[in-house]
Parts: sequence; C-alpha cells; structure tokens
Amino acid sequence: MTNFKIRPLEITDYDKGYLNLLSQLTTVGEIHKDKFEENFNKLPECHKLFVIEDVTRNTIVSIGTLIIETKFIHNCGKVGHIEDIVVDRNIRGKGLGKMIVNYLSKLSNDYGCYKCVLNCTNDLIEFYKKCNFNYNGCEMSLYY
Amino acid sequence: MTNFKIRPLEITDYDKGYLNLLSQLTTVGEIHKDKFEENFNKLPECHKLFVIEDVTRNTIVSIGTLIIETKFIHNCGKVGHIEDIVVDRNIRGKGLGKMIVNYLSKLSNDYGCYKCVLNCTNDLIEFYKKCNFNYNGCEMSLYY
Repeated sequence: MTNFKIRPLEITDYDKGYLNLLSQLTTVGEIHKDKFEENFNKLPECHKLFVIEDVTRNTIVSIGTLIIETKFIHNCGKVGHIEDIVVDRNIRGKGLGKMIVNYLSKLSNDYGCYKCVLNCTNDLIEFYKKCNFNYNGCEMSLYY
Repeated sequence: MTNFKIRPLEITDYDKGYLNLLSQLTTVGEIHKDKFEENFNKLPECHKLFVIEDVTRNTIVSIGTLIIETKFIHNCGKVGHIEDIVVDRNIRGKGLGKMIVNYLSKLSNDYGCYKCVLNCTNDLIEFYKKCNFNYNGCEMSLYY
C-alpha cells in the first residue's frame, strides 16, 4: 500500500483523473479545466476534499469529502459530514475505501467534532459498520 | 400567522431565547453571551441559520439551519443540507415546522441547489413527506 498516498485535493488533480473517478459515483457533466479551477477556488475552508493518489501512476484512485459544520448545540460543538466517497472500480477490495473513510473520520475528530455522520444506501451499511459507524436514522431528500 | 416573522439569525437573538429553544432539541450546555457571539461571528457564509420570531413577544419560536455544499458532481452542482429544526414545544401544531422547512428548502432551490437533504428519526418521516421530502437512504454516525 506504500504507493497509495492520501492528501488534500489539489488544483492539478484535474489532470490526474479526479473527474473521471467522480463520474463512477454519479453524473458529473462536461467540466473544463477553467470551470474546475473556478469551483476549486471557491470551495469554503470548511469543505475539505481529499484524494488517494496511486503515486506510481500519478492517478487518483479514491476520493472523499469532509464538511465541518459549526453548531451551537453541544457547547458550540462541531459535526463532520462525510460526502462523496468513491474508490476506482478497477482497484476495489484493497482497503482503499476503509482507508479514506477512516482518515476523514479521524480528521473530523482532530477538528474537535463530537460526531461524524454520512448518508448511504442500505447495501453499504455493513461496510460503514466496519469503519465504526452505526445506523442512526433516515435520509430524506427533495430533488428540484 | 402575521405575528410570526422568518429571518436570518441575528447576534441579538441570544436575548430572544435562541439557546433555550435549541435546548429542546438536545444538550446545549452553558453558553455565555461572549461565547455565543464568538461562535456566531465564525459561522461561515455557507452556513445559513434562520429563526421564526413571534414579534408580539420578541421571542424565537422556531429555528433551522441550511448548509450550502459546493460539489463537483452534477456540473459543479450544489446541495442544501437542512439541520437542527426546532419548534417551541409550547406552540406546536400551528404549522411553524412546515413554515421553516419549506422556507429553507425553497432557499436551497434559490441558491441553485439540485437537491436538498436532511436526516431524521423514523417518526418524522411523515412530517417531512408533507414538506415534499422523500425517503432516500440511511444516516450512519460515529460518536467520539
């Protein structure tokens, strides 16, 4: 696993397959480099995007986001929200999913969050249990 | 309902019962005015906290948060996350919950989000269905 390096998303990751990998999760659309850079530059400080790079191939193989929410409850506590976890489908089963989720949940703890949460489909419950998450309720959504 | 006004949280809402109302949701702890103001001032732009004030009593009767998340998926799309909805238990059944949830989900749409999401316990699914949300998956959490 020494060829896999976890680090924050960099603006040059456009050329390392970041959007291709994201398109394994859902629709991405046609995002040219300038639009990618514009969106990258407007990400707020509390949105922390990470990648795992296969440094032998200069390619992004896993990605994940952590949003730090500042609340008033729990003594002005903070909550970490994990979003958009993807592992390249050609390289699954090597523990990269656990590696990025565990990294983000530890980071959330390091930022002083009292909990970390994420939403997933039923078939991923067992995976997230292995990452020390427990079922806590429902996600409801409204699409425009 | 003309005495109920919905508006962004203001720093002076400390004296209008904001934290008392929040304590109906969960533990708040002892937050003095200076700590409230410090936390208020460090809320990032993408965290939008709203209240409903009963202007005849200068009292906050409902609260809710909308976090705007900037993503790369869906053509650099945005997602609204609704958090920490509370209606004063002494004034429930008047439609204030629907009023604040509908306001935040419309605001999320106005900000260009392609969807709005929230997490809740099973007993609140029917309420959120009345606000046009649908069941979409599980919430998993890790407490530190």
